[in-house]
Amino acid sequence: MAKLKWGMIGGGEGSQIGPAHRLGAGLDGAFEFTAGALDHRADAGRAYGQRLGLATDRAYGDWREMLAGETARDDRVDLVTVATPNATHFEITKAFLEAGFHVLCEKPMTMTVEEGEEIVRLSETTGRICAVNYGYSGYSLVRHMKAMVARGDLGDIRLVKAEFAHGHHADAADADNPRVRWRYDPAQAGVSAQFADCGIHALHMASFVIGQEATRLSADTVSCISSRQLEDDAMVNLRFDGGAVGRLWTSSVALGRQHGLTLQVFGEKGGLRWAQEHPNQLYWMPLNGRLEVIERGAGGLSPEADRTSRVTVGHAEGMPLAFANIYADLAEAIRAGKEGRMMDPAADLYPRASDGLRSMAAVFAVAESGKAEGVWVDARPPMYR
Amino acid sequence: MAKLKWGMIGGGEGSQIGPAHRLGAGLDGAFEFTAGALDHRADAGRAYGQRLGLATDRAYGDWREMLAGETARDDRVDLVTVATPNATHFEITKAFLEAGFHVLCEKPMTMTVEEGEEIVRLSETTGRICAVNYGYSGYSLVRHMKAMVARGDLGDIRLVKAEFAHGHHADAADADNPRVRWRYDPAQAGVSAQFADCGIHALHMASFVIGQEATRLSADTVSCISSRQLEDDAMVNLRFDGGAVGRLWTSSVALGRQHGLTLQVFGEKGGLRWAQEHPNQLYWMPLNGRLEVIERGAGGLSPEADRTSRVTVGHAEGMPLAFANIYADLAEAIRAGKEGRMMDPAADLYPRASDGLRSMAAVFAVAESGKAEGVWVDARPPMYR
Amino acid sequence: MAKLKWGMIGGGEGSQIGPAHRLGAGLDGAFEFTAGALDHRADAGRAYGQRLGLATDRAYGDWREMLAGETARDDRVDLVTVATPNATHFEITKAFLEAGFHVLCEKPMTMTVEEGEEIVRLSETTGRICAVNYGYSGYSLVRHMKAMVARGDLGDIRLVKAEFAHGHHADAADADNPRVRWRYDPAQAGVSAQFADCGIHALHMASFVIGQEATRLSADTVSCISSRQLEDDAMVNLRFDGGAVGRLWTSSVALGRQHGLTLQVFGEKGGLRWAQEHPNQLYWMPLNGRLEVIERGAGGLSPEADRTSRVTVGHAEGMPLAFANIYADLAEAIRAGKEGRMMDPAADLYPRASDGLRSMAAVFAVAESGKAEGVWVDARPPMYR
Amino acid sequence: MAKLKWGMIGGGEGSQIGPAHRLGAGLDGAFEFTAGALDHRADAGRAYGQRLGLATDRAYGDWREMLAGETARDDRVDLVTVATPNATHFEITKAFLEAGFHVLCEKPMTMTVEEGEEIVRLSETTGRICAVNYGYSGYSLVRHMKAMVARGDLGDIRLVKAEFAHGHHADAADADNPRVRWRYDPAQAGVSAQFADCGIHALHMASFVIGQEATRLSADTVSCISSRQLEDDAMVNLRFDGGAVGRLWTSSVALGRQHGLTLQVFGEKGGLRWAQEHPNQLYWMPLNGRLEVIERGAGGLSPEADRTSRVTVGHAEGMPLAFANIYADLAEAIRAGKEGRMMDPAADLYPRASDGLRSMAAVFAVAESGKAEGVWVDARPPMYR
Repeated sequence: MAKLKWGMIGGGEGSQIGPAHRLGAGLDGAFEFTAGALDHRADAGRAYGQRLGLATDRAYGDWREMLAGETARDDRVDLVTVATPNATHFEITKAFLEAGFHVLCEKPMTMTVEEGEEIVRLSETTGRICAVNYGYSGYSLVRHMKAMVARGDLGDIRLVKAEFAHGHHADAADADNPRVRWRYDPAQAGVSAQFADCGIHALHMASFVIGQEATRLSADTVSCISSRQLEDDAMVNLRFDGGAVGRLWTSSVALGRQHGLTLQVFGEKGGLRWAQEHPNQLYWMPLNGRLEVIERGAGGLSPEADRTSRVTVGHAEGMPLAFANIYADLAEAIRAGKEGRMMDPAADLYPRASDGLRSMAAVFAVAESGKAEGVWVDARPPMYR
Repeated sequence: MAKLKWGMIGGGEGSQIGPAHRLGAGLDGAFEFTAGALDHRADAGRAYGQRLGLATDRAYGDWREMLAGETARDDRVDLVTVATPNATHFEITKAFLEAGFHVLCEKPMTMTVEEGEEIVRLSETTGRICAVNYGYSGYSLVRHMKAMVARGDLGDIRLVKAEFAHGHHADAADADNPRVRWRYDPAQAGVSAQFADCGIHALHMASFVIGQEATRLSADTVSCISSRQLEDDAMVNLRFDGGAVGRLWTSSVALGRQHGLTLQVFGEKGGLRWAQEHPNQLYWMPLNGRLEVIERGAGGLSPEADRTSRVTVGHAEGMPLAFANIYADLAEAIRAGKEGRMMDPAADLYPRASDGLRSMAAVFAVAESGKAEGVWVDARPPMYR
Repeated sequence: MAKLKWGMIGGGEGSQIGPAHRLGAGLDGAFEFTAGALDHRADAGRAYGQRLGLATDRAYGDWREMLAGETARDDRVDLVTVATPNATHFEITKAFLEAGFHVLCEKPMTMTVEEGEEIVRLSETTGRICAVNYGYSGYSLVRHMKAMVARGDLGDIRLVKAEFAHGHHADAADADNPRVRWRYDPAQAGVSAQFADCGIHALHMASFVIGQEATRLSADTVSCISSRQLEDDAMVNLRFDGGAVGRLWTSSVALGRQHGLTLQVFGEKGGLRWAQEHPNQLYWMPLNGRLEVIERGAGGLSPEADRTSRVTVGHAEGMPLAFANIYADLAEAIRAGKEGRMMDPAADLYPRASDGLRSMAAVFAVAESGKAEGVWVDARPPMYR
Repeated sequence: MAKLKWGMIGGGEGSQIGPAHRLGAGLDGAFEFTAGALDHRADAGRAYGQRLGLATDRAYGDWREMLAGETARDDRVDLVTVATPNATHFEITKAFLEAGFHVLCEKPMTMTVEEGEEIVRLSETTGRICAVNYGYSGYSLVRHMKAMVARGDLGDIRLVKAEFAHGHHADAADADNPRVRWRYDPAQAGVSAQFADCGIHALHMASFVIGQEATRLSADTVSCISSRQLEDDAMVNLRFDGGAVGRLWTSSVALGRQHGLTLQVFGEKGGLRWAQEHPNQLYWMPLNGRLEVIERGAGGLSPEADRTSRVTVGHAEGMPLAFANIYADLAEAIRAGKEGRMMDPAADLYPRASDGLRSMAAVFAVAESGKAEGVWVDARPPMYR
């Protein structure tokens, strides 16, 4: 089985996201790192690409050069990852989709809802994959939660409670540090800080697991560090199209929490609880039963869980493998496309452009509601209303 | 040191609350169970009282008889606990305060804000204690959290996150069981179900620990089981008079959670986390430090914690001792009054009538906001505006 | 139901054990504190007894005076608790049993095996109760473990793993502090320090839960702080009379552990895990099933668990209530005796003189094996061989 | 930086160990999978190797063919992983070392102590690396524990407590399943089952972290399932050459434990606790301080921890990355050798042939002691006495 060819834009030397993508894409041996435009400084990007093993003519100086170069080749890359600064995602993703490439775009996919709608349409009209990197949805037990809900183990879902609250921006003395400050500056970050950065992960996970999309929301957004123009803490109440109620808390000033992405799902027939920091255990309470611990890798789970579990039960798996599961989904999708067959339904779970669009609509809805004393607003992008 | 004399109204045979109060009042030997009107059926109450060791003439048939009997005695009881059905709390508490007794009233103290204000005024004018049984505030490490905030360990408080979410009313098939149904019936429960039942514990604890009172709130209340007229789940956003933001979640459909009372407090200089189900550990994160585990009973804690810790470190303490700590506060307050001295400030922490009043105002505010799409409303009783 | 009359020897002002016993005995209202010889200083003991509410003529100066005084009365105490220094337990317990009193003796019951055998025989010949205070066996979920094993949920027991390892004597700089030093001094503590102090609790619990008695053992005893003549750490391997293998670790130098009493039981059909520091949860793994969390106070548990559970599920219970459960067992045993009826079998679980004797035999066996490179020795007292 | 060339023997289609090694070796991009003899069936091995991307002439039919083929090439592989059945490790490892290859051998390195000594001498005389895959020692926080001990944070080490106890062979009805049975059959497994399979991981980790080697040991070995000739549970007491006492428990019948590899280290100045199932947190108790949680990826840790931490704090890392860290050590060692420089001391932590030898000596010592009622025996191989 020939390896797929993979290219990356961004993720230059010293970045955190670059190694994470290379690790995720390479982990199963499905993708070979073949082309890249890794740095906004052309020479640095070319040199770094070559040090990472790229051929000289595929270590590009910028994304336009890469677009031209790859488009011109017969052996063009099968997938392009866009891991550049947020404001550039739209332009690059659009260009590569138009040129017929499959794309995995870092979140946020775009900076506006309109751009998001354009990408969704483009993905549909071109028939190219535009995936968005909600990497936490790759965890095996997150997949299993989705499968349990889908097969009815919980009955109708009443309530979903999602949190992504950490304390890493809690130091007021450090708030003006450029590393932190840009995130709370509307000129750079847009209309939302903490919700756009972390909240949308939690919202995507909630939607992903319960199989419902947010329709309306009400947000209470605050800046606990007063010099910030954008929120560092938000509570969002939601309604979903399948009838579920949502409650989502995100914060960057919650001292004592390291990461803080957790999900609780409550249905008619049972409840689930999961936390990213200990992702190998899932807590399941059947109605009138006892709390049970479901271990990743145990026998008798769903196909979706089995497919994304890589080491035997009891051995910890972590975030890099969740990430790799997204790439594994994409490899299967691309191969199925090449081979003209249906893809494995248990792999058909990678986040879509539509997820990226819905996130962007939620970001703007949270910002709007937050400014208006929590008035309920439509959480959907216009094209899905 | 002579024992104080203690009487109870309600808490008849088979009730859960009766034994809990007897245990709490008797635990330190400060109070002797001396008088009671334990049952709305006069004969049953008298018989049960005598079986519990009350003298024949102090095992009363109803509270009015007890009020008359005790008022007439020279050796009248020092404290009366009111543990009757909610709707009767006001009338009984009022009568005993007016007659000059100290009272510990079960929560909710009253059914309306106006009644609450009357009790507060009465407690002030008579100089009698009217305590309200927010028993969870008696836990040693809850006291320590309050002490840490008060002495500035956390700096200014930015955010408090309180939860009291369990899953014990999640069974739709059991929702019409009278044991459950009355709680969600406006005719019996008033304007609120889950917030009034559990949410006010969480709100009291948040206020108690951060030393601030709620001023405004916005609530999203829902009935996950559709036959219910009152809410079984609510998210409440708050603002406090010292500048803190509050987020409070309460639920009775959260399957997998047994009790679910937890508190997180985030300040400029650190964060705290505590859970009632494991009350002997407190998690403390100093800014730029490491998460530390503070054990109940360890050396070097606050006087407030030391006073309410009864067994050596490493041995579990539980809810009955928290309850007993409220009685211990009251014993000290009553004795200090008798002896004409200042009470130990570390004991001066029992919940007040003002707390009962503020809870009632919050209940009505949550109900009002919940009906009006989460509009922000004043959370304070009129007399504290 | 008239209260039983209770007396205590030892537990003077400032002791930890005195308040714990008063709390345990008084908690249910079954016992009334009626007589005491609380201090080896006669005047101090009498004064303290009176301050605690004893009648003048029953606040004794020493135990012999109390023995004479109570023996002479018609309304003599129903139960005497012996909470004096270890070396005096035998003499006092013996004297009270001979005089026809029921006794609850603090552990260790005696300082030698021979003394232990004498007490066992005396208890049998007099028909008086001699209980020993292995208070941890009073926890509701410990009782439930025993019930699960007894009813066959685990099948044959293969292995029991008990630990009682803490770090409270780990400070070498503090080792000569008299508060600590006596425990490791053979002149005061006898042949064993840490095993005699904590190990026997763990051994009793293991035996109690699996319903088997230790027959042979091999011990590795060490003094991690070299100035100590007695062990501060021991690993003991055991064989039980029902075929189970035992492994028991006890330590006082295990820094980071606060209390460290835990039990794991492994049978043919399932495994159990419990820890004293979080006593309200029991972890149960049925063979080929999933780990389940059994909550204290939940429905559907055993009569033994139900009887010893006092507050509703989800509310923490702690050590003082476990202690009180031992007293509740004794109250039932004494009352059944008075009333000439069989006692409730679910209460017939208090630790016996035979348990105290077996512990003492184990202490000497551990000391002997520890000195002889871990040679296997008989763990039983001669009278049970 | 050119990739190193890597070959593997064993790890054929359907094995668990093969993908784990490919993942570990490939994760950082340091090694390229270049040659293999993956299956004892020559055709199957060649075909699978080619499917995995090996060149036709380097997808060998057996290890002898691979030895000949690679030896003859100028671009021979830089590292050979031996992942064949245990009984073949010695012969293959020996042959490749003699031919001048660096080797990473799966554990156990050999089946006898004599073979182990031969490999150690061969590694020394050839100057070739012979690493042994104690993969758990690659976890970042295991490295940090070692660094903390080495720099004196704990003072002298008094005690180390290691466990590797799971319940995956507890089903008596499944004990004759060939998948399980061979492990307890002396003809296939040698002198020890559970200790040789899991115990040596725990022992290596204990030695690795405290920087001391076992000198003597006493073992209690039992077969809880009676049809087994070799032990399924063992308790081993140890003495180390730096004065530490060791206690090591290993079991395969501990129902309710999934993996169960844990380490506790107790020194004069503090204690540490770590568990493989939640490898991203390390619990540290400084003497007279409070328990602290050290998070993997946090700032201010040791160079050894920093080097082996791959994703930001709060994101889970798991076993595959620990595995990869061993390969990263080897890549650094091999490159340093090629470049004629000292290797990074923080990478110089991969397990050595000497570790494999010591494990084998411990296996025989445990078997000997276990048969002789736990007599203390020398735990060292003859060449290290």
